[in-house]
Amino acid sequence: MPTTVRAYGAASAKAPLEPVAIERRDTGAHDVKIDIQFCGVCHSDIHFTSGDFGPLPVSPLVPGHEIVGVVTEIGEQVTKHAVGDRVGIGCMVNSCRECENCQAGEEQYCLNGHTLVFGNVDRDGSYTQGGYSQMIVANEDFVVRVPASLDPASAAPLLCAGITVYAPLKKWGAGPGKRVAVVGLGGLGHLGVKMAKAMGAQVTVLSRSESKREAALALGADAYAATGDTSTYQQLANTFDIILNTVSAPIDVDAHLGMLRRDGTLANVGVTTEPLAYNPFALMTNGRAVVGSQFGGIRETQEMLDFAAEHQVTADIELISADRINEAYQRVLDSDVRYRFVIDNATLA
Amino acid sequence: MPTTVRAYGAASAKAPLEPVAIERRDTGAHDVKIDIQFCGVCHSDIHFTSGDFGPLPVSPLVPGHEIVGVVTEIGEQVTKHAVGDRVGIGCMVNSCRECENCQAGEEQYCLNGHTLVFGNVDRDGSYTQGGYSQMIVANEDFVVRVPASLDPASAAPLLCAGITVYAPLKKWGAGPGKRVAVVGLGGLGHLGVKMAKAMGAQVTVLSRSESKREAALALGADAYAATGDTSTYQQLANTFDIILNTVSAPIDVDAHLGMLRRDGTLANVGVTTEPLAYNPFALMTNGRAVVGSQFGGIRETQEMLDFAAEHQVTADIELISADRINEAYQRVLDSDVRYRFVIDNATLA
Repeated sequence: MPTTVRAYGAASAKAPLEPVAIERRDTGAHDVKIDIQFCGVCHSDIHFTSGDFGPLPVSPLVPGHEIVGVVTEIGEQVTKHAVGDRVGIGCMVNSCRECENCQAGEEQYCLNGHTLVFGNVDRDGSYTQGGYSQMIVANEDFVVRVPASLDPASAAPLLCAGITVYAPLKKWGAGPGKRVAVVGLGGLGHLGVKMAKAMGAQVTVLSRSESKREAALALGADAYAATGDTSTYQQLANTFDIILNTVSAPIDVDAHLGMLRRDGTLANVGVTTEPLAYNPFALMTNGRAVVGSQFGGIRETQEMLDFAAEHQVTADIELISADRINEAYQRVLDSDVRYRFVIDNATLA
Repeated sequence: MPTTVRAYGAASAKAPLEPVAIERRDTGAHDVKIDIQFCGVCHSDIHFTSGDFGPLPVSPLVPGHEIVGVVTEIGEQVTKHAVGDRVGIGCMVNSCRECENCQAGEEQYCLNGHTLVFGNVDRDGSYTQGGYSQMIVANEDFVVRVPASLDPASAAPLLCAGITVYAPLKKWGAGPGKRVAVVGLGGLGHLGVKMAKAMGAQVTVLSRSESKREAALALGADAYAATGDTSTYQQLANTFDIILNTVSAPIDVDAHLGMLRRDGTLANVGVTTEPLAYNPFALMTNGRAVVGSQFGGIRETQEMLDFAAEHQVTADIELISADRINEAYQRVLDSDVRYRFVIDNATLA
């Protein structure tokens, strides 16, 4: 007998989100049932419900992929989680588990297509529905532990934004003696600053204007530079080992490449659907790299949460009741949030 | 007293090369004097003398940057080379030696600008002149040993083409169990196949048509695919760890990115002055990278020559007398050479 739960969802693309009722499956042998406490509001949620990525696959569509909650029931075969555990779910709730990427624990790159936490058809044939809801049932393998020392509301954005910045910083060697620039200071960027600092790197925030200088330094950045003044690119030539680009709009790739020192990496995690162009000579100089990265696998998401607990890294959030979600969406679009809205899912009751 | 030597040079951009006389400085305390035996003909030579990179800096301009010869005199402070040694000179004859890249032995990325073997102003104020000449005097630090087991004529192209493909293959992990694709089968590409094979990788040659299949397999490639049939891109999706792009014209970056498996790298070593464009999603999928690389430092050039000797990797060449250089240039432009012209510098006498 599926369980009906309260949620906020979109009936059609561009429609405002409204209270809806959705069904959750019974807790299967490998499933855990989670009472959702908090869910972050990511720009991608807005892209999906606005139809930016295509028509809504199901109506209503309930977004939300930065989920923190408490296990209330486990299936008979479950070994990884227990009732009462604080756990999290991020972007994925399933993958093929058989391709070389799944076998390597990098399910985000599943060659047969991972199952997103909302808007995808799950292996049982039903549409997945996300975290703007009271409860979720998911396979234990795609559920991670949220350490008790992390504030659960502020930890919610780690499930997507956190792993999205952590994975490329780690892969490309952020650490002591390394210089990291973070482009953009939104939900991703502010966690990029905190993660890179926690890894021991020297961190500079790059933003168009001077307006975010104080905020950047308050987050722990060592330096700040405004790229609206294009002489900044020359002043910072050959400076950074990693430039983490969190901006969801096209950037001047060559200008940013010029700031990379030898073997430096421009890592793109901001999503833009427009093509980016580069001059091959800008890439050849200093042996530079332009790379992409897509959130992270389950194993690394757990590693990131444990790292965040050790270094007390969480998001700066604005906690809202569920009925303020449409207002929050508009403020995200206006870049008017420091730095992440998180829904208090108790307000759905 | 400078020494006058015979050479082939261009009086002005686009002018045919003709016999000229140039002066070489006396052997300084840190210099070695080299009797040039062989010099490779690289497409870059043509770019320079044709004015593709700007007006000629000096007239005549003597190109040539794949030099093999024998030491005939050494300066009093020289410790690295002795009279009678077989040695080589590649793209550079000097650098600042003080910047972080020079200190790291990556002089090709000298932040104060390395000195090219021809057409640059050397530290003594004179213009450098290249290897289409009888003799050269150069600082010992930019002269490498050419192992005796290598055929000196066939080894000459290693000094530019060889290191240009070796460095990115090594940096990005070509070796046993790795799948490497080489795009283009010219001077760079054919050495890319040989080097990647010698490193233990599985090698596929990608070319527009079927015309180079036999040649590719004869060079040791394990497989061949024609990308003129665009279904090849789908058939080879998620296949390669490294794609070494040796083509000097814009490629379809996204189509090539699609063939990279997780953590795969598209390494550009072909030189094109046109910008290249990529779709951020193509880069994000599988955590892919687009990288550049510029020949290599002196330490790594020596390492490459020792590796080439160990694995008997040299270029397939067509040896020509110096008076056939203009004909050779035209045939390079027509892609009518397998795979590298090398000048027999004895014919300058």
